[in-house]
Amino acid sequence: MKLLRFGSPGQERPGLLDAEGRVRDLSLHAPDLAGPTVSLAALDEIRAIDVASLPVVDAPDRIGSCLAWVPNFFCIGLNYAKHAAETGSKEPAEPILFSKASSALSGPYDPVRIPRDSRKCDWEVELGVVIGAECSYVSEEEALSRIAGYCVINDVSKREFQIERGGQWMKGKSAPTFGPTGPYLVTADEIADPQSLALSLALNGETVQSSSTSDMIFGVAQIVSYMSRFMTLLPGDVIATGTPEGVGMGMSPQRFLKPGDVMVLTVEGLGSQRQEVVASV
Amino acid sequence: MKLLRFGSPGQERPGLLDAEGRVRDLSLHAPDLAGPTVSLAALDEIRAIDVASLPVVDAPDRIGSCLAWVPNFFCIGLNYAKHAAETGSKEPAEPILFSKASSALSGPYDPVRIPRDSRKCDWEVELGVVIGAECSYVSEEEALSRIAGYCVINDVSKREFQIERGGQWMKGKSAPTFGPTGPYLVTADEIADPQSLALSLALNGETVQSSSTSDMIFGVAQIVSYMSRFMTLLPGDVIATGTPEGVGMGMSPQRFLKPGDVMVLTVEGLGSQRQEVVASV
Repeated sequence: MKLLRFGSPGQERPGLLDAEGRVRDLSLHAPDLAGPTVSLAALDEIRAIDVASLPVVDAPDRIGSCLAWVPNFFCIGLNYAKHAAETGSKEPAEPILFSKASSALSGPYDPVRIPRDSRKCDWEVELGVVIGAECSYVSEEEALSRIAGYCVINDVSKREFQIERGGQWMKGKSAPTFGPTGPYLVTADEIADPQSLALSLALNGETVQSSSTSDMIFGVAQIVSYMSRFMTLLPGDVIATGTPEGVGMGMSPQRFLKPGDVMVLTVEGLGSQRQEVVASV
Repeated sequence: MKLLRFGSPGQERPGLLDAEGRVRDLSLHAPDLAGPTVSLAALDEIRAIDVASLPVVDAPDRIGSCLAWVPNFFCIGLNYAKHAAETGSKEPAEPILFSKASSALSGPYDPVRIPRDSRKCDWEVELGVVIGAECSYVSEEEALSRIAGYCVINDVSKREFQIERGGQWMKGKSAPTFGPTGPYLVTADEIADPQSLALSLALNGETVQSSSTSDMIFGVAQIVSYMSRFMTLLPGDVIATGTPEGVGMGMSPQRFLKPGDVMVLTVEGLGSQRQEVVASV
């Protein structure tokens, strides 16, 4: 299933993309998509609905984030070897874990707003993993069975805040609009192998990132298993699994986002995002 | 007001401590305490209730975390000069910001469980700040007016996971039971000055931390204003504002938590916590 949320910001309703590509309204069956309502059990209930019985939504005015809120917005750092190299970092010996503020979550077509006092805003196309069941000391073999689904994420980053402000990366990852997520939560049954998905990002029509999740240093199963040794993962938690090479800070000369830039991000099987960059308020 | 949550884990109901120290049931007026229900406007609605009309709860069997869930569990690192020194760190030039997984949240009297493979579990008594209104580019002068209230937090930490596993601190801060919070959310009107509160932690009856929030490097207003330049803070967000000197890793020889240890934490005006340490599962 491809699940989504449509409507004005803060007023979104849950929906489902049918086989003909039309949006169907799920709001009579699911209060929203977030936390417990994307648990594996809740998804099974949605799966049991007769799609033809759901009202078709004609031309929804906006698609929001595929999740209304997240218990945690986790990120894995430096998880593609060539990206680690372009940032001048060593390949990590184990996953690097940090988080975005949950208020960074935004829609896949919403503008990305440059924060005040920021000159080094950068893009990062990523495979997003949405947790579907509690994970605590989960083995790699079990890990994929705890996943609700996958989505596209742009892990927008302001490099000077990330790197030059005390060492913990959260400050550079958490501004409002820095977490475009969606358009779809694609349930795990639709993704045969999360380690063989092409992903790319085009800036103003020029492809700057183009790779495959096969190039990840730590795969999705390893990441989920690893994280579950340090914390309990909850249904609805999102993990942005790292970005491949081709970010602006890795270019020579370096290149950063400016108002009017347009980013188009695609992950195979998960749909595309498009964001225009706007100036700070 | 002193707000709290009573009942079995996952079954808590919201309550209020009355002038005689009795728990009064708030559940007919507030669905729970978390996120929007601890916004300044929601707290004003609770404040308008006639306390005498609320049912008295005789001997509640358990007090849970004073918040049901948190949009973000933020922490400030190295925010007391003597604590920075005892860890061998320089005094930071600006607040160091990281987070706990939101699933670390636990009750003030619940056991603290040592994670598997962890030998260096440590204690940290802290003043917790609960946000009451959205904060984005808030000045220091405005910051305190956006705060819902204050609470005691034990920022339990496993030092080898925090320091020896890749540099980002989250891994050492996020285990289940690593975020005892409460017993009370004490509304901001009851705390005349958050920078003049005594705070202490006793381990097995011996006082190991004893300081005052006057010793913070960055005060509460500075922290909230500073953070609001990097992200939007939301009602119900918690900020653990750092711990004073006296943690186990700063002792000579170093001393870490073991099963059977008992921690008692107090912050002036906010009540006390008590946790027994239990072995890993």
